Amino acid sequence: MAIRKEKFTMIKVAAQNNIKADKIDEFIAIAKNLVAETRKYDAGCVRYELLQDVKNPQLLTMLEEWDDQEALNNHLLSQHFKDAMATFAGYLEKPGEINLYKTLA
Amino acid sequence: MAIRKEKFTMIKVAAQNNIKADKIDEFIAIAKNLVAETRKYDAGCVRYELLQDVKNPQLLTMLEEWDDQEALNNHLLSQHFKDAMATFAGYLEKPGEINLYKTLA
Repeated sequence: MAIRKEKFTMIKVAAQNNIKADKIDEFIAIAKNLVAETRKYDAGCVRYELLQDVKNPQLLTMLEEWDDQEALNNHLLSQHFKDAMATFAGYLEKPGEINLYKTLA
Repeated sequence: MAIRKEKFTMIKVAAQNNIKADKIDEFIAIAKNLVAETRKYDAGCVRYELLQDVKNPQLLTMLEEWDDQEALNNHLLSQHFKDAMATFAGYLEKPGEINLYKTLA
């Protein structure tokens, strides 16, 4: 019996950030740079997007898709991610919410 | 000067549903059917997915992408959407959260 390759497991992330009104432009500039660096350097990144709520411009969400948990973990350890998070900490109006998802359909 | 076509406006939706623990399987079955009918019938639907939080199986999120607000509005008026929502009302543990997003990067 042949050895079967482990099942491919996509993981999706929605990370909601509630940003101070006077820090929105700065957040967006740094987040756009984070998006560009993540897409360029981080293996296993399928999708990495910066979204803004149409009714509440202070709600800025990263929508992500990774090949697997290991790829996501490596992203969280990357210098560009850690640098961005250190800056974002001062921009938060209230704690955000991070959800990790599997796709059912 | 040539008339320029109106800018294409994609809209993304994250609709979080908090489902009663004993209704998860029923919700998933109906939501999968809703996904299939939406993909098959609703014009302007780019992406329509059913996601489940990996740590909290009661959090079931629809992740959507529409050509524009009109396409989303037509989906909300469709019979398959209204039928599913009528059923889901009895499955909710607490009110969900719906966010409409534009893409910045």
